[in-house]
Amino acid sequence: MEASFKEKKLFTPGPLCCSRSVKEAMLVDVGSRDSYFVSCVKEIRPSTSWRLLSEAEYTAIPLQGSGTYCVEAVLQTTSPRQGAKVLVLANGAYGRRMGQMCAWAGLEVRLEEFPEDQRLDLAKVEALLRNESFTTVAVVHCETSTGIINPVEDVARLVASLQPGAAMVVDAMSSFGAVPLDISGSGIDYVVSSANKCLEGVPGFSFAICRTKHLLSCKGNCRVLSLDLVDQHSALERSGQFRFTPATHAMLAFRQALREYASSGGLEGRAKRYQENRSILRVGMKRLGFRELLKEEDAGYIITSFHFLQHERFDFPKLYSRLSDKGQVIYPGKVTNADCFRIGNIGHLFPDDVRTFLGHLEDVLKEMGLPVPLP
Amino acid sequence: MEASFKEKKLFTPGPLCCSRSVKEAMLVDVGSRDSYFVSCVKEIRPSTSWRLLSEAEYTAIPLQGSGTYCVEAVLQTTSPRQGAKVLVLANGAYGRRMGQMCAWAGLEVRLEEFPEDQRLDLAKVEALLRNESFTTVAVVHCETSTGIINPVEDVARLVASLQPGAAMVVDAMSSFGAVPLDISGSGIDYVVSSANKCLEGVPGFSFAICRTKHLLSCKGNCRVLSLDLVDQHSALERSGQFRFTPATHAMLAFRQALREYASSGGLEGRAKRYQENRSILRVGMKRLGFRELLKEEDAGYIITSFHFLQHERFDFPKLYSRLSDKGQVIYPGKVTNADCFRIGNIGHLFPDDVRTFLGHLEDVLKEMGLPVPLP
Repeated sequence: MEASFKEKKLFTPGPLCCSRSVKEAMLVDVGSRDSYFVSCVKEIRPSTSWRLLSEAEYTAIPLQGSGTYCVEAVLQTTSPRQGAKVLVLANGAYGRRMGQMCAWAGLEVRLEEFPEDQRLDLAKVEALLRNESFTTVAVVHCETSTGIINPVEDVARLVASLQPGAAMVVDAMSSFGAVPLDISGSGIDYVVSSANKCLEGVPGFSFAICRTKHLLSCKGNCRVLSLDLVDQHSALERSGQFRFTPATHAMLAFRQALREYASSGGLEGRAKRYQENRSILRVGMKRLGFRELLKEEDAGYIITSFHFLQHERFDFPKLYSRLSDKGQVIYPGKVTNADCFRIGNIGHLFPDDVRTFLGHLEDVLKEMGLPVPLP
Repeated sequence: MEASFKEKKLFTPGPLCCSRSVKEAMLVDVGSRDSYFVSCVKEIRPSTSWRLLSEAEYTAIPLQGSGTYCVEAVLQTTSPRQGAKVLVLANGAYGRRMGQMCAWAGLEVRLEEFPEDQRLDLAKVEALLRNESFTTVAVVHCETSTGIINPVEDVARLVASLQPGAAMVVDAMSSFGAVPLDISGSGIDYVVSSANKCLEGVPGFSFAICRTKHLLSCKGNCRVLSLDLVDQHSALERSGQFRFTPATHAMLAFRQALREYASSGGLEGRAKRYQENRSILRVGMKRLGFRELLKEEDAGYIITSFHFLQHERFDFPKLYSRLSDKGQVIYPGKVTNADCFRIGNIGHLFPDDVRTFLGHLEDVLKEMGLPVPLP
């Protein structure tokens, strides 16, 4: 470790803070084909879907790489080599990224863009589904670029009723495990998330929860060996082992993270803590004069977008770097039509961390010569 | 950590043992866009190519995922969308895997298979290059399925003279950093390796050393957003940041691993230690009656394949599991035409570890009722 290094609190969409015990689980080297690691994978795979869906119908497939890799893996795996047509419903950067993936792959894609500061408009979605046939429909649950929570269960129900043959794909990267999602009840076929979001493992791999029956119908589709979820699934089922070297340390950390997730109340416990974080954040930010980008009914409790203060002395890069010097990392905005920044509530952060953050923010605003609260 | 868990020495092709200090570098959470992490990436990227090639001509691109991902990224990135034709020279499982990647991608590929227990036959390679035109020629340096070291510099010189337009790609996964490779002198365009091989970081990402000029000519080729090396390179050059969440902990570990690599003598130091490991292993194994698969002139000092003992009491699964109980992890064979197993010399293993291993192996053979040494 550098002498100058000071660990910071990460109020970002990821990488996030993890508990010390999660990180300490990485202090050992294990062979990826050794029975100890195989049993670790066996513990992880069912746990990932634990309490969230009916295990019999779904399978959890960990995949090396960041969350983006796994979203791309699902789009590749669900798109037949001939005749694929993907509908991407996008109201932010992560939705648009799915459109990019299809373009890169040369897949026919309809990238339908919605306003970034509102949830998806279901009437428009319904009209799209009545007009054209798709092999895959893809949507983001919590659009991390703003924090919006999209009505993905309603979209899934529309797809199930209007296009029952299409694969229904949800990128639940930053919401999985903390925001309820009725996966089997609404007819979702694929959900993607990553180790380093609400389950609070370290980054290094991601996973897809797949409806097994649908997945098995996709054999031969994927044009990328590394990202072939059918092939990955088949190796894991056959031997409990990965096809290619897994991030063993990250997976040991994830097992520990899942144990801590279970012992701290699972989804309900995590939702409660994140909601409390956000509630303290909202009150504090409002007091300091910050306005939220989203209307309350569209916002979740994962990450919150705030408008820049309308004051000549407000300077985001300066704010960012001064907060960072005080050990508080926030995140720039990711919307195209407004000057915003983002503050995340997820990861190993607690109400007291949010209070401390607010204190530092107030100090920085004062140092910058801004009136607090802004009149 | 489980009470029952006992850390083992990994005599495998990976995941490998890392030093304690490398693992301890993972005990912090850092933001991926924070200046601290950006400076970590800045330190890693030139170091990866340090002393191994001329930096001006090449660029090092870390990529999330296992080594296989990065090999696939290079094949995808170097293959134009129209008219690609890949020559894969294979004498083992990792060569064949490159053929699979091309097949998955729907690329025209000539997978030329050579005997698994010999280095590539250069006369045959030359004949192939005289007969047909290719856009990419791909070959494995140390074929980890046997331990063979292929004459990739000679192949590269043939390619440079007979097909100067083709991208010359070397999978140097298990040799990079410990086996000398004249990358620029022989005309190699791309070399792929992973954090968790001879540089002794933890698994979680891999990297490609790319001839920058060639890489920049490949814009728009890659059919996979996650694996697009041109895009990855351009983000890293522009902002020092990754496009998608990097495995921050694995990269902090890698920085520490590179520092330890430099302070322990770089390539020469590592080569010396691995050669010493192997030399002790060879003598000890021979004494116990084991025969090597390869002729000495074809073998390297990364991993060694041994034939099963010809004795009715020899039982590999039993041997494997008893050694594992004693904290020694070896690896099954990966050749199709012989009953073999493998013992790796790389990772944070030292001559004394090899001596300890040999002692345990002798004990296990005796426990299994085998005469030692075999008459």
